[in-house]
Amino acid sequence: MATSRLTVEAGQPPLRRRGAVLERAILDAALDQLNTVGFNGLTMEGVAAGAQTGKAAVYRRWPSKEDLVADALRAALPSLAHAPDLGSVREDLFELCRTLREAMYSRPGTALRSVLHECDQAEAERFHELITEGVMRPTEERIKEVVRRGIKRGEVRPGADHTFVYEVIPAMMMYRAKVCGSEWADPDFEQMVDRVMLPLLLAPAP
Amino acid sequence: MATSRLTVEAGQPPLRRRGAVLERAILDAALDQLNTVGFNGLTMEGVAAGAQTGKAAVYRRWPSKEDLVADALRAALPSLAHAPDLGSVREDLFELCRTLREAMYSRPGTALRSVLHECDQAEAERFHELITEGVMRPTEERIKEVVRRGIKRGEVRPGADHTFVYEVIPAMMMYRAKVCGSEWADPDFEQMVDRVMLPLLLAPAP
Repeated sequence: MATSRLTVEAGQPPLRRRGAVLERAILDAALDQLNTVGFNGLTMEGVAAGAQTGKAAVYRRWPSKEDLVADALRAALPSLAHAPDLGSVREDLFELCRTLREAMYSRPGTALRSVLHECDQAEAERFHELITEGVMRPTEERIKEVVRRGIKRGEVRPGADHTFVYEVIPAMMMYRAKVCGSEWADPDFEQMVDRVMLPLLLAPAP
Repeated sequence: MATSRLTVEAGQPPLRRRGAVLERAILDAALDQLNTVGFNGLTMEGVAAGAQTGKAAVYRRWPSKEDLVADALRAALPSLAHAPDLGSVREDLFELCRTLREAMYSRPGTALRSVLHECDQAEAERFHELITEGVMRPTEERIKEVVRRGIKRGEVRPGADHTFVYEVIPAMMMYRAKVCGSEWADPDFEQMVDRVMLPLLLAPAP
């Protein structure tokens, strides 16, 4: 991503790239701008310069700064498309915790949170949805898969198949991040999984 | 609180009140202003007029708008000083959920959340602390009392005495309010208590 930090020298023609490659460069440049000058400082001109392309190439794809920023964040967030399947609920939940942490504290995750601080309330709703639909809901879905697989194996009690149960981990992670202002270290995950999730999930020993 | 909505007519002398009574009137007027014109619209003059007193009486007690607003919110939040003791963990937790909901959605709770949206980041930290120290931490403390009493009765398993366990209810309530944008109805509390908290807390049947 080193190229995206360069600016176009006066008179230097834009690099010739098309389609997905150019798009990727523009999205990278947008993320760079978010992390350096913030949402309010980001301009379409600045992004074009960062991506070594013209302003028209940016506007052709994204009619507004908000559209561009939303896509840049969405493209960079870690994928939560697949649930881990490591053979035990405990290992699967650890893995999901680590992925959620990555989504919250990675470069796009940090950028997303700072965007929420800077933008006005109408814009905030849109980015808020990006967190909900792009991070929180998929996490809940993956936890559901892990729990249901555990039920099939006889490891998890059938009564644990419930929406509220799937919300506990994302809720705890958001709460600690907001209220305690603390990041999540691996030992915190261990305590959450061993002291909260396993007692809640595991079937009683036969 | 009807008086706090009146304004001082030109030339009309301020009402003669002192000490706690006047203080109460000023705090009420501040809360009124928060709910009508918001944090940015609130002025010390407006609050003084609402409380039918002079600006000097306000400034004498609160050197800044932020101090006044923080005190007005703190004074109006429902008290979380005592844990319910209704004989069963289930009933105690319901009662605590209802108190926490009151703190979140009551007039001061709503005002507090709107303040957080309006104020800048340095101010936000202070009001954020008000939520943490005035609402969230006391809730955790009360849940701890309820759980420990349940352990003594033999109703709750001893392993449930853990910080992370006490955070589940406030975390879930904050999460649903933020991510789902939904208020908490009594049936939601029932599901949270019966599907999450009781399986997590109760000692296995002997």
